[in-house]
Amino acid sequence: MKKPKWVVKKEQGEKREGKETVWLFGIHAVRDALSNPARKKLRLVLTKNAADRLADVLPTAGIEPEMCEPRRFAAPLDPNSVHQGAALEVMPLDWGNVSEVCIGGGDERPARVMLLDRVTDPHNVGAILRSAEVFGARAVIGTKHHSAPETGALAKTASGALERQPYLRVVNLGRAIEELKKAGYFVIGLDGEAESVIETHLDELGTRPIALVLGAEGPGLREKTKELCDVLAKIEYAGEFGSLNVSNAAAVSLYAATRAK
Amino acid sequence: MKKPKWVVKKEQGEKREGKETVWLFGIHAVRDALSNPARKKLRLVLTKNAADRLADVLPTAGIEPEMCEPRRFAAPLDPNSVHQGAALEVMPLDWGNVSEVCIGGGDERPARVMLLDRVTDPHNVGAILRSAEVFGARAVIGTKHHSAPETGALAKTASGALERQPYLRVVNLGRAIEELKKAGYFVIGLDGEAESVIETHLDELGTRPIALVLGAEGPGLREKTKELCDVLAKIEYAGEFGSLNVSNAAAVSLYAATRAK
Repeated sequence: MKKPKWVVKKEQGEKREGKETVWLFGIHAVRDALSNPARKKLRLVLTKNAADRLADVLPTAGIEPEMCEPRRFAAPLDPNSVHQGAALEVMPLDWGNVSEVCIGGGDERPARVMLLDRVTDPHNVGAILRSAEVFGARAVIGTKHHSAPETGALAKTASGALERQPYLRVVNLGRAIEELKKAGYFVIGLDGEAESVIETHLDELGTRPIALVLGAEGPGLREKTKELCDVLAKIEYAGEFGSLNVSNAAAVSLYAATRAK
Repeated sequence: MKKPKWVVKKEQGEKREGKETVWLFGIHAVRDALSNPARKKLRLVLTKNAADRLADVLPTAGIEPEMCEPRRFAAPLDPNSVHQGAALEVMPLDWGNVSEVCIGGGDERPARVMLLDRVTDPHNVGAILRSAEVFGARAVIGTKHHSAPETGALAKTASGALERQPYLRVVNLGRAIEELKKAGYFVIGLDGEAESVIETHLDELGTRPIALVLGAEGPGLREKTKELCDVLAKIEYAGEFGSLNVSNAAAVSLYAATRAK
């Protein structure tokens, strides 16, 4: 095992092949990435203790760790990051484009896709990736700008789902919606002030491909996003007051869409 | 409007009437609490700007604000709190006990209750309170120890739901489960490794009172909690891998229980 050659001073991420690299941290996130053959690994920084905890995946990870002392942890992380002595610099995953991931293919399950209109909080996006994986959505699609980038914090809240669940970030969300519509998707925009409830539409649509679009908390969907949706609908609810957290709204609507018959 | 008499140096919370007071912060959380007649208000600290933004609720709030300069904000908050110039010291809400809140009453909706076995993250509990309100659960019940207390951070993520959704903290969760069972509740423990799926049970139970029990991420339900449940069940899912964030699992299971016919 190599000794670290230098202590990196710069902030998180560096440009390589035109993309910003990502520092993943924490035992679980690093383990999941090390176990993922599709993940391009650049640097692995470990304390002795972390290396022991990752001993099962290190031999086949294809990268030599740089060992360091806990007190001089040589990875450029935010000082508040709970890194547990493990950090891994990686390239973002390349899942392909909307058409490759969401259209066609031999998947026997009804196609479901989740689009996020400027959801910036990495904790919400991380939780949404987990729900998307559990309920079998083909992809979560966000925008390149104004949406949570693939970061260590996102990876940590995604609890492994970042390695397995396609998360695409497109330049133009409207264009992605149009592409999905052309391919036969019915696009439902979640909007708490809509008149119809999502359940009605899901029952009618059955196994047809469905895309769900969610906006950020507070502003909700942008006007131009709303115009592109086939329909706006809300989740059926009992209370007079209140609103769901965005990741909870995503989980519930995706669950409802998964169970549509 | 009074000028602040002193700048408080101590940490958050003070004992009054045998309970710790709570400092709520941020325009939304303070507005919701000021508008809540059941909320016992102790001190209100505002900047001029925040007072302007709260001008609609101040006249009827029943408390005089202490005005202060933004740079010398006189409330004992965590320095990272995004207080927006508004802080309100309050007594925790007293919702009554399990029997008063969850049993009997003239509510025409099927009774639903959510129990949390040591869920400590205030962001998750805040999101769960929102879902409980939206889907009409009678209460969210946590433990007095080892669960998220009513704090400013919890109020902020609960986005108003803390003022409206009963959140009980009991000494002994097992005793609460037994009390609910005696009153006719069927108690379902959420467990990702259970053999049966929650949907099967919900379909059988229909409008019967249902209590859902969720454990913390990672450890899940404690063994003694599991033993007290009528049944352990998991949410039906499509994927081979993955797990839901605890607030998303709460939202989905509560939604499924709300829609059981």
